[in-house]
Amino acid sequence: MTRAQLVQLIRDRASYLCIGLDTDPTKIPTGCTVFDFNKAIIDATRDLCVCYKINTAFYESQGIQGWTSLERTAAYIGDSHFLIADAKRGDIGNTSVQYAKAFFERMPFDAVTVAPYMGEDSVRPFLDFAGKWAIVLGLTSNPGAADFELLETSGRPLYERVISTASRWGTPDNLMFVVGATQVEAFRHIRHLAPQHFFLVPGVGAQGGSLREISERALNSEGGLLVNVSRGIIYSGKDAAFAEAARQAATAYQVEMKTYLDKILQVKTFE
Amino acid sequence: MTRAQLVQLIRDRASYLCIGLDTDPTKIPTGCTVFDFNKAIIDATRDLCVCYKINTAFYESQGIQGWTSLERTAAYIGDSHFLIADAKRGDIGNTSVQYAKAFFERMPFDAVTVAPYMGEDSVRPFLDFAGKWAIVLGLTSNPGAADFELLETSGRPLYERVISTASRWGTPDNLMFVVGATQVEAFRHIRHLAPQHFFLVPGVGAQGGSLREISERALNSEGGLLVNVSRGIIYSGKDAAFAEAARQAATAYQVEMKTYLDKILQVKTFE
Repeated sequence: MTRAQLVQLIRDRASYLCIGLDTDPTKIPTGCTVFDFNKAIIDATRDLCVCYKINTAFYESQGIQGWTSLERTAAYIGDSHFLIADAKRGDIGNTSVQYAKAFFERMPFDAVTVAPYMGEDSVRPFLDFAGKWAIVLGLTSNPGAADFELLETSGRPLYERVISTASRWGTPDNLMFVVGATQVEAFRHIRHLAPQHFFLVPGVGAQGGSLREISERALNSEGGLLVNVSRGIIYSGKDAAFAEAARQAATAYQVEMKTYLDKILQVKTFE
Repeated sequence: MTRAQLVQLIRDRASYLCIGLDTDPTKIPTGCTVFDFNKAIIDATRDLCVCYKINTAFYESQGIQGWTSLERTAAYIGDSHFLIADAKRGDIGNTSVQYAKAFFERMPFDAVTVAPYMGEDSVRPFLDFAGKWAIVLGLTSNPGAADFELLETSGRPLYERVISTASRWGTPDNLMFVVGATQVEAFRHIRHLAPQHFFLVPGVGAQGGSLREISERALNSEGGLLVNVSRGIIYSGKDAAFAEAARQAATAYQVEMKTYLDKILQVKTFE
């Protein structure tokens, strides 16, 4: 999916919501398969979000059956949404090529999250597919972000160098950054470092980040944010009505997002 | 596998060779499946190496069929070798738990390679399984290592901080480091930083690293090295005699390793 198409989805649905399908078989209703659970969540939320993010770990831990659920879920979503493999991949060039093929050729993902530690040749293969994206870890939402991402490197924290260096490997048309919602204080500065790039923002909901605070600091004239909520939507209801509960939770996020988008996009909306 | 068991394997086989099964379907003899290729390589090399390393990317790029080959290969190797999933995983805690389950519970791997960027909570779940290991990226063999791993952080390159910080998360009994064979100049210093830890060393062979130079700088009294060769062994022969060619290539490495081990281990060998 191109950036223009993604921006249009955001305008059309008045939403920059990404729903994270971190589907844990131990947390879904008894008798429901992972694919059936995902299908019900997707059916209930398609019009409210622009993006689904599949966390590959929850599928790999189920072996072949899990990998099958992952492929079926990706195919079921189709091209109506921006589809992210949250896989945190990245290796030497000839290996990253294989990961890129897995997610972009074998499966219909639009983007893969990529760890930056190994540098340019570990990320570049993900940038070589038309209409596909690498989403490079910038400043993450977890406590461990303090261990290395915030280390000072000649006067600037490491994550700033990652964002400014990786910005040069790709363009705002094929590269995004992960910026955790718990890092509110850094958001304005990060937006300044990468004014045009999309940010994938996990950490709202279960991890405690505030949608309002992030949006105020980092929405740009195209939206420029994909805010992910996983557990806070898909596990809103525990019983057979889980899909309806997920729709209610997703609706609350979309309604709030619309108010922020209205402020940002009003001058540029031509509908 | 415990460290004592691994050290015993190294003594018994007079080898610290790890064979990397980066099996690319486009590079194996026509009509040969990935599993059959791996099986032939394993049968031809079992007595020469202590470790097999499966590069997950080459299997993921083949979808379900690839994942099936990966599981079958891991099961076929069994517990006679230290078995590494070279997967470069790592994510927030609840997600890394799922990756650890995938490789340590669902599949019989002894170790997973882990990217350190996201810090302690992204690595710790891999340390919580008895007899299992996290192999944290330290200084890698690829050109991109210069982008961030060598960045100066208050007087020390980032990779040094990663090694000294991550050393405290685990012990030499459950944590190793990846140190690329192309980083010869750094090897003595890295051994000084982590005297007891095993290093997984890729980059010999196709990437140009020297077995002799690494061994002189970083073998310790337990061996302390697992030197990986992938393409330099598994693609030694192009035709039906590929397994015999792989055995010849592996034998050359093992014979050379024995000469280095003899110098280091002679005083401590009780056989």
